[in-house]
Amino acid sequence: MFKAIVSAETLRTTLDSVSVLVDECKIHLNEDGLEIRAVDPANVGMVDLGLDADAFESYEADGGLIGVNLSRLEDIAGMANSGDLVHLELDEETRKLHIQIDGLEYTLALIDPDSIRQEPDIPDLDLPARVVVEGADIDRAVRAADMVSDHIALGVADDQFYIDAEGDTDDVHLELDRDDLIDLDAGDAHSLFSLDYLKDMNKAIPKDAEVTLELGEEFPVKLHFDIAEGLGTVTFMLAPRIQSD
Amino acid sequence: MFKAIVSAETLRTTLDSVSVLVDECKIHLNEDGLEIRAVDPANVGMVDLGLDADAFESYEADGGLIGVNLSRLEDIAGMANSGDLVHLELDEETRKLHIQIDGLEYTLALIDPDSIRQEPDIPDLDLPARVVVEGADIDRAVRAADMVSDHIALGVADDQFYIDAEGDTDDVHLELDRDDLIDLDAGDAHSLFSLDYLKDMNKAIPKDAEVTLELGEEFPVKLHFDIAEGLGTVTFMLAPRIQSD
Amino acid sequence: MFKAIVSAETLRTTLDSVSVLVDECKIHLNEDGLEIRAVDPANVGMVDLGLDADAFESYEADGGLIGVNLSRLEDIAGMANSGDLVHLELDEETRKLHIQIDGLEYTLALIDPDSIRQEPDIPDLDLPARVVVEGADIDRAVRAADMVSDHIALGVADDQFYIDAEGDTDDVHLELDRDDLIDLDAGDAHSLFSLDYLKDMNKAIPKDAEVTLELGEEFPVKLHFDIAEGLGTVTFMLAPRIQSD
Repeated sequence: MFKAIVSAETLRTTLDSVSVLVDECKIHLNEDGLEIRAVDPANVGMVDLGLDADAFESYEADGGLIGVNLSRLEDIAGMANSGDLVHLELDEETRKLHIQIDGLEYTLALIDPDSIRQEPDIPDLDLPARVVVEGADIDRAVRAADMVSDHIALGVADDQFYIDAEGDTDDVHLELDRDDLIDLDAGDAHSLFSLDYLKDMNKAIPKDAEVTLELGEEFPVKLHFDIAEGLGTVTFMLAPRIQSD
Repeated sequence: MFKAIVSAETLRTTLDSVSVLVDECKIHLNEDGLEIRAVDPANVGMVDLGLDADAFESYEADGGLIGVNLSRLEDIAGMANSGDLVHLELDEETRKLHIQIDGLEYTLALIDPDSIRQEPDIPDLDLPARVVVEGADIDRAVRAADMVSDHIALGVADDQFYIDAEGDTDDVHLELDRDDLIDLDAGDAHSLFSLDYLKDMNKAIPKDAEVTLELGEEFPVKLHFDIAEGLGTVTFMLAPRIQSD
Repeated sequence: MFKAIVSAETLRTTLDSVSVLVDECKIHLNEDGLEIRAVDPANVGMVDLGLDADAFESYEADGGLIGVNLSRLEDIAGMANSGDLVHLELDEETRKLHIQIDGLEYTLALIDPDSIRQEPDIPDLDLPARVVVEGADIDRAVRAADMVSDHIALGVADDQFYIDAEGDTDDVHLELDRDDLIDLDAGDAHSLFSLDYLKDMNKAIPKDAEVTLELGEEFPVKLHFDIAEGLGTVTFMLAPRIQSD
């Protein structure tokens, strides 16, 4: 069984964090909250999202698993005004999710979880550098890099976090030192990433979020941030590209 | 003769109410105000609009009839800032409408009324159910239904006004009882309508308007609402679709 | 050498004034400020822009000449928040322009000035009529004319500045007399212009600018306005079209 009430805003933030990578996903309806893990078709970007039962107005679940079409669910959540509560209830018989928003009832057909791409195992990497930065700075770097290139290098050197993008004629470079950063555990790190993926992930990162990046030498980057006022967490992991030159 | 001054806002609201159904229309320039009746090419949606002479800053007319291109007239009205007055004067000789907005003069060629589709006779139906609802609720129902289907059922049963849309996999249902409605004269009613038409009509309905719906069993629906602070009235009528099943 | 700091807003206004006519331009880095002259490929519209050294937070130059891609530079300036300062520094060796905005460094490859269309000589015409008008009035006239025609007549007669556009069926006419104008030196003037060019120039004219138009009989029109709080000036010149009839 699954029966929950959640604010439209929390629901939308949750869905947006996953839909930047995949169209469909499995949602684990655990006793203590939701859990979603997904990887994009090319196996390059992963997301691991947890939303605590306390992030809901009310929450009851006993460990079920459902498959959902994310854009469909986002459209429904988009019908709610901010401040509206969204009532969710699973009909185990029909495998439909009943969604109710201020009198409006939407019956959503679920997807067989077995037909959805397998959930990834997010590797537990021990990465040498750790940077805590504002979401707005990631946004700025990604938009600037996008003007010149389709890949972007992230690195840590000399007590600085830097971002580099090299185009055919023009280059973009951003350096953030300890004063510009919320926190920094320095360590050698430099990896190149596909800008398309980072742009998608950036869409899901609130501009005012504290984003923790874990970085290494030619290693994946992990980006963590909180949602739902700290009652939910999102981790993106992005595989590096082979250095071009 | 026809000579009138009207606020840009009233003119725009008037034109928008008709242009959602047709591109060209006849306007009756009666002594006591304007009257427009029009039906869409497929004969499914009709509009009957009256705008009282008191809705104008000044109004003089003696019963003429003009034909206008609505989108052209909307473009001109769109040039006015809110608060601007629009001066209209018919030149009987040249069959042109002189429109003047804060020094800007626009000379609009009229259309021969005989070349415009004939005006419909809006049938005087005695429909069993009558519901008064906020424009915002119609908007919400229409947008939700649009996510799952291309038709929508409107009905009254058990002292409730309901809206149903059934898609291939998902359904939308909205129930509004006496507490949610401004008024209700209960009576058996259930009819299916094309969502495209209702979406177009919805565009013309102010969100804060009180909309009166008259409904029956497999009968057309009538939607009435006021414009121009009660000095104008709009009635839409929409023919039902044959029940699909 | 060239090294300067300028507000993002001043930089954007400067670039926009030129980019409405051309994609690339030469910028003269004079000791006392920037100068840009450009003409569109069809030789119909010209721009002459000067930005005083005092319009910059700091400015050092010794008479160099650079060639730039305007849309690329506009994109970079668009990254700045309003209030941000943009640091510009020319690397003479590499012929690259280093642009720095709040920690973000952009290295822009310059264009060989010899590869850019030759700069026009803006003729020093002695035009008989002079009108000073608000940018908002030009905007209104251009948008209204655009509804009916692809050319527009500007003229002065009987102590009035007028704008005329004649379409196949509809006409637009705007008359501004001494009360509507900021200033008027009357003189016989009437010329027809391509609306496309005037629409482009209009995009660069601030709505609250005082625009001085100099006009003659079948002569080019000159439009002057200030930018950067009077520390920069823009002059557009537009060649007339042969009167159509």
